[in-house]
Amino acid sequence: MALYVHKYGGTSVGSLERIEAVAARVAEHRGAGHHVAVVVSAMSGETNRLQGLGFDLGGQAVPREMDVLLASGEQASAALTAMALIRRGVPAQSFLADQLPIRTDAAHTRARIEHIETASLFRAFEAGVVPVIAGFQGVAEDGAITTLGRGGSDTTAVALAAALEADECQIYTDVDGVYTTDPRVVATARRLERVTFEEMLEMASLGSKVLHPRSVEFAGKYGVPVRVLSSFEDGPGTLISLEEQEGMEQPMVSGIAFTRDEAKISVRAVPDVPGVASSILGPVSACGIEVDMIVQNLAHDGGRNDFTFTVKRGDYDRALAVVKEAAETLGAGPVVGDSKIVKVSVVGVGMRSHAGVATQMFAALAKENINIQMISTSEIKISVVLDEKYLELAVRTIHDTFGLERA
Amino acid sequence: MALYVHKYGGTSVGSLERIEAVAARVAEHRGAGHHVAVVVSAMSGETNRLQGLGFDLGGQAVPREMDVLLASGEQASAALTAMALIRRGVPAQSFLADQLPIRTDAAHTRARIEHIETASLFRAFEAGVVPVIAGFQGVAEDGAITTLGRGGSDTTAVALAAALEADECQIYTDVDGVYTTDPRVVATARRLERVTFEEMLEMASLGSKVLHPRSVEFAGKYGVPVRVLSSFEDGPGTLISLEEQEGMEQPMVSGIAFTRDEAKISVRAVPDVPGVASSILGPVSACGIEVDMIVQNLAHDGGRNDFTFTVKRGDYDRALAVVKEAAETLGAGPVVGDSKIVKVSVVGVGMRSHAGVATQMFAALAKENINIQMISTSEIKISVVLDEKYLELAVRTIHDTFGLERA
Repeated sequence: MALYVHKYGGTSVGSLERIEAVAARVAEHRGAGHHVAVVVSAMSGETNRLQGLGFDLGGQAVPREMDVLLASGEQASAALTAMALIRRGVPAQSFLADQLPIRTDAAHTRARIEHIETASLFRAFEAGVVPVIAGFQGVAEDGAITTLGRGGSDTTAVALAAALEADECQIYTDVDGVYTTDPRVVATARRLERVTFEEMLEMASLGSKVLHPRSVEFAGKYGVPVRVLSSFEDGPGTLISLEEQEGMEQPMVSGIAFTRDEAKISVRAVPDVPGVASSILGPVSACGIEVDMIVQNLAHDGGRNDFTFTVKRGDYDRALAVVKEAAETLGAGPVVGDSKIVKVSVVGVGMRSHAGVATQMFAALAKENINIQMISTSEIKISVVLDEKYLELAVRTIHDTFGLERA
Repeated sequence: MALYVHKYGGTSVGSLERIEAVAARVAEHRGAGHHVAVVVSAMSGETNRLQGLGFDLGGQAVPREMDVLLASGEQASAALTAMALIRRGVPAQSFLADQLPIRTDAAHTRARIEHIETASLFRAFEAGVVPVIAGFQGVAEDGAITTLGRGGSDTTAVALAAALEADECQIYTDVDGVYTTDPRVVATARRLERVTFEEMLEMASLGSKVLHPRSVEFAGKYGVPVRVLSSFEDGPGTLISLEEQEGMEQPMVSGIAFTRDEAKISVRAVPDVPGVASSILGPVSACGIEVDMIVQNLAHDGGRNDFTFTVKRGDYDRALAVVKEAAETLGAGPVVGDSKIVKVSVVGVGMRSHAGVATQMFAALAKENINIQMISTSEIKISVVLDEKYLELAVRTIHDTFGLERA
């Protein structure tokens, strides 16, 4: 007998028919003799609807009340899912965050889970009752309702699996697993049997549609095996776990991630003195703009550097203005930018033991005459910035080069 | 400085504009130096929407989960109302039932309030914060969410006013008070300055649109002055209180209530032996059919009675079938019925000290050739059953007879 946490996202509980399908799946697992705890999101569209109402009343300034408002969505879907189970003859009961409780800090709209009390869940299991837990919500020390931010239900599920020491946290979603890359870009993209938490984090651009990076981090920290599965069709999905692939040689590259909405800003001829980077990036961060890749190279004229970084495309204009001011103060050269770039990353824990992945990747791009504008590497990832027009070609070429279509 | 409980129903918080109007009114009262606690219903339509979803999943059989589902509606509107207040510069905070708590019994979907803990509300008042309480919901001993049934937010408001020893419980609704009768039937119907709880209860057919009878009973029991007011226009509304009208002679009649959807069933020639009434009505109640007026008269042939009672029109066919069976068993005469009748009632605490109200009422009906089919009286009410075609004429005639158009 195993203990599973099932998590169903907004699309999976988006209609009464779908909620009934969820109940059918849970009933099946339970019929096979397993304990199942179910975590649900709000019905699709509901969180956006509530957020819209709240924002219209100035809710951004009142995070405590936004949380009360938003948490009502998961409350409703937890009750509906429990009803659907009971109608199928499966005893079930909804649990809201404060009924366990799921204790969080007091950071409203982006709270962090501190502790989950599992006693009532184990009592439910013993009584043969399937607990249906409202995802996304928590309760602060003072009794206020909190929410965990976007992707919060994933975090609830993973934290719950950790607290229950579940055998697996199963994330049911609208895709049937994690792919070597986006199948809409590369037709031969292949579902991965398993990936490591590290790879999943580095593949954020693929993974974020499937599983929120924060929950992946959480799962890695507590060693909770997470499986991503389709809630619409049966299949093994993708297992995300601590262990690297066993029983065969680890492939060098597991997948190719990419993001489209990138922009880059370069400051030319920056004086080569300490504190320059923070002089440029400090004002950017102060505006709440997130910086992704940062590259600094010795430029042509000795003693001066080119300093380049990327931001989300939506932040480009603001960032450019801020940096121009900073560059002037610094006595740096001209500031130039490009908002039509993309980032393509090759990810794989196998890179650790295989040299030459970068060379192979760059050669493949060169063969297609694709110019690489920036390069950044980590232990298990190599990212390049390219002109956006090359995105599809680059991803397909690299996918081919590393033979990702083959298992 | 006074302490008011304001209650806003679904229509009054039915849109963001209306929620803002609620905030404006609360801000005004608070600006005048009063403490205000606000109780809100779910946005209009929301409870029905949620109930529809729940019923589609068999929620009728799972009252515990129906309560979790339904309570989410008031949760959202409490948060939205608090936001609207804060945006107006009025510090506010939402409170859910379990955050006070509002303790109830465990009778899901029709729970009764047992105790309201007011400490956190008084703390809010002291801190200058307007508490916005989610109506309709409670929490049972075991931590389960309960709801109070239809009209539950009225009950929350009145119970809260009692617990806070508020100066007045103000029910804001879509009418501007309680009228001598339905203004759609009698153009000269007049808003009453005040009525007693007893009168309000007897005028249920008028009052139930305005205020749930259960909350009136509760208010009477705890002596909470309740005022019914329009949430759309200013005005004094109608005060419902323990005291009868002061400073002037109490009018004999305060108002005329009526209900349209009535039906009557008569059993002829019932043997005059003990236990007959329960033999007839027992099976009716067992079907969950509510019986209203009951009249028993000695019939023409000595030793046998005519037994007549009324039910809601929707229950008529079922009741008739049940009673026919019971009459046969009893050896009674034929069972006859009429589903096209109405009930008209004259209500007034002044009747206690004035004889002749019945005579005046019957004479007025006789003058219009309206035949009275049944009569039933209580200390402050006289009800008659009439053919439905006479309803408007009867109500107008009686309204005139007692001069109710004059203050």
